[in-house]
Amino acid sequence: MNREISQAVIRRMPRYYRYLGDLLDEGVERISSNELSAKMKVTASQIRQDLNNFGGFGQQGYGYNVQYLYEEIGKILGLEEQHNIIVIGAGNLGQALANYSKFEKLGFMIIGLFDVNPKLQGQYIRGIPIMMLEELEEFAQGHQIDIATLTMPKSTADSIANRLVDIGVHAIWNFAHVDLDLMDENVVVENVHLSESLMQLSYNMLRSRTELCP
Amino acid sequence: MNREISQAVIRRMPRYYRYLGDLLDEGVERISSNELSAKMKVTASQIRQDLNNFGGFGQQGYGYNVQYLYEEIGKILGLEEQHNIIVIGAGNLGQALANYSKFEKLGFMIIGLFDVNPKLQGQYIRGIPIMMLEELEEFAQGHQIDIATLTMPKSTADSIANRLVDIGVHAIWNFAHVDLDLMDENVVVENVHLSESLMQLSYNMLRSRTELCP
Repeated sequence: MNREISQAVIRRMPRYYRYLGDLLDEGVERISSNELSAKMKVTASQIRQDLNNFGGFGQQGYGYNVQYLYEEIGKILGLEEQHNIIVIGAGNLGQALANYSKFEKLGFMIIGLFDVNPKLQGQYIRGIPIMMLEELEEFAQGHQIDIATLTMPKSTADSIANRLVDIGVHAIWNFAHVDLDLMDENVVVENVHLSESLMQLSYNMLRSRTELCP
Repeated sequence: MNREISQAVIRRMPRYYRYLGDLLDEGVERISSNELSAKMKVTASQIRQDLNNFGGFGQQGYGYNVQYLYEEIGKILGLEEQHNIIVIGAGNLGQALANYSKFEKLGFMIIGLFDVNPKLQGQYIRGIPIMMLEELEEFAQGHQIDIATLTMPKSTADSIANRLVDIGVHAIWNFAHVDLDLMDENVVVENVHLSESLMQLSYNMLRSRTELCP
């Protein structure tokens, strides 16, 4: 696999996966890059270029086999295997993520939530237990943890993230509003900074208003 | 204002804003682009290039005045004025967003939640009322709505989004797992696709494992 593929390309792959899944649901068996282009509102050449990073998958004059391409993109995205997730912080956001059953269809299984609030101890969200943060190391001995999701305040994010790295977690899905400072640079981090997304929306609103009424 | 500024630059501006806010909290009055570069782990030339899109703000030999730069970036991002937000879908995610008080410090005020579940009618989240979706149009007559947040299932997202456009909403923060098909192309949309972010993390995990153990 080519290791030089840009994150911009990677960011687009889940979107292809989503469209192909919808096409499968609609019973579509094959699609040309032009048809896919019209649906996804990206150019056909962009689609061909993106997919060529991974070997192409299309046939001249035939287009793409939807089922095959869906499965291949799933493999590229690592969706062939199950990923166990824990969520640190069982507040509203942590509970919302635990309640979101669609992640499971993609192979992402939330197996535990952790919090420091003793009131939450022993509670379950959709069958998923809420444990105390002090139980984390013990839990890790009996369970494979592939991804840790951070939803606690940013003040504790670094120390907890490094504790996770110590117990062998190599991937962090970070909702804490901070860039993590990790001791191990092999850990993979994906940030979801909601207020930054809101600020980007705000910028685009302002710009669009300026363009309409200069 | 230059209208050709790329979304990649815009995406970085909230991060500058966050770092400058932290520096202000620490009492730092001025900072060189080299110091800021070391903190943010982007090159000093990237920082200068990004800020030059908006006029620069730095002085040769002095660096940046933290307070001034913070305020100017706030203006660029439209944070000078208050934005009223409604949230469609008062499930876990909608309630989590309503509970997140930090948005208010940035001027984003959630003023109402809407749902179709009659059990939620009349409830309040942190003082914010949950109303029935059928009350949306009436609510819009008495309140300015700047941003609508969509957290309901994707099957109803398009129809509700277009209903929002009809009542004059020009900005949508979309958590529904679909690309909205809007009748008015002047509407600004910012997507937060959580499962796509998880897939990107999964890809990067797989790649990092392949690199460590080829």
